[in-house]
Amino acid sequence: MDNINRLTMFKPQRPVGLIVVITGYGKGKTTTAMGIALRATGHNMKVCIIEFMKGDMYSGEIDGVKRLFPNVELHLMGKGFCGLYGNPYPFEEHRENAQAALKLAREKLFSGEYDILILDEINNALHLGLLDLPQVIELIESKPPLIHIVLTGRNAHPEIIKRAHTVTEMKEIKHAYRQGIEPQRGIDF
Amino acid sequence: MDNINRLTMFKPQRPVGLIVVITGYGKGKTTTAMGIALRATGHNMKVCIIEFMKGDMYSGEIDGVKRLFPNVELHLMGKGFCGLYGNPYPFEEHRENAQAALKLAREKLFSGEYDILILDEINNALHLGLLDLPQVIELIESKPPLIHIVLTGRNAHPEIIKRAHTVTEMKEIKHAYRQGIEPQRGIDF
Repeated sequence: MDNINRLTMFKPQRPVGLIVVITGYGKGKTTTAMGIALRATGHNMKVCIIEFMKGDMYSGEIDGVKRLFPNVELHLMGKGFCGLYGNPYPFEEHRENAQAALKLAREKLFSGEYDILILDEINNALHLGLLDLPQVIELIESKPPLIHIVLTGRNAHPEIIKRAHTVTEMKEIKHAYRQGIEPQRGIDF
Repeated sequence: MDNINRLTMFKPQRPVGLIVVITGYGKGKTTTAMGIALRATGHNMKVCIIEFMKGDMYSGEIDGVKRLFPNVELHLMGKGFCGLYGNPYPFEEHRENAQAALKLAREKLFSGEYDILILDEINNALHLGLLDLPQVIELIESKPPLIHIVLTGRNAHPEIIKRAHTVTEMKEIKHAYRQGIEPQRGIDF
């Protein structure tokens, strides 16, 4: 924390609530969302994270975000990746979970309590048919002007990308698991 | 924090300290590094973040990581982007700073105190000639086996990518500033 006193603080003349999309097949989408939450606490902003798919496996951020209380809250609304990795739950149950997550997202969006709403894996949930495109479009188009919304997950829909301000595609150049290395604590979960 | 009790915890049979590279021109590289730090605290791991370039402008993570004390520490060793954005410092001063950051990285790497060492913007520092390739190769090749090293920044060198386990390229699909929107608090800084 060296020399913080000499740091310049940027102040935008016109605050805008951004729509940010983090997509692609590379590692780092949920991780970026967690970094956004961490950064926001430095500005004393309030962040709500809703997990649309994840919720069956432990990952360090679940306890990590507790350190950011009361600025950040995390809701695990999913039961893992529908149709993948031997996930045992039927499609209808995944869809019910995703629909409940969307309902929660809508409540949080209009509660006036948050500066940033993070919808983790919502792109994937939409792609898999757990949500319908008009539902997600309606959500982001009706957002209060100053709240930032972050939508993560593979296969972001072109109609969502069209409505976003900032979109990053995470491209996998290499991944340890392709070299026969199991997921590692602190990096992969 | 719903239903955490039912979560499964993965345990790798063979722990490996990974070399992770986050590169590309899209938004989210430093953000990902911060997300890694946040996630690691959930495992009660210890993380050292060294900023090779940043250190002139305030960004929320500077205070955000204080919430993660004593698991995470952050060292601002730079003075902004050499030769960019009207940065006033001469090349030699940037190089001295980067060399001091590398020295600190080496001390932290071999201190035995950390599980993860994050070298933020080191790829960029190397690309700009503030560090030399053999210095960075020597650092990562001599690392203790179980520590994870994360190297972020644009223009990652092919010789660094060759030695990494996991590499993500962040590709800019859209960015708010290209639509005339200034950097926004909580997303851009």
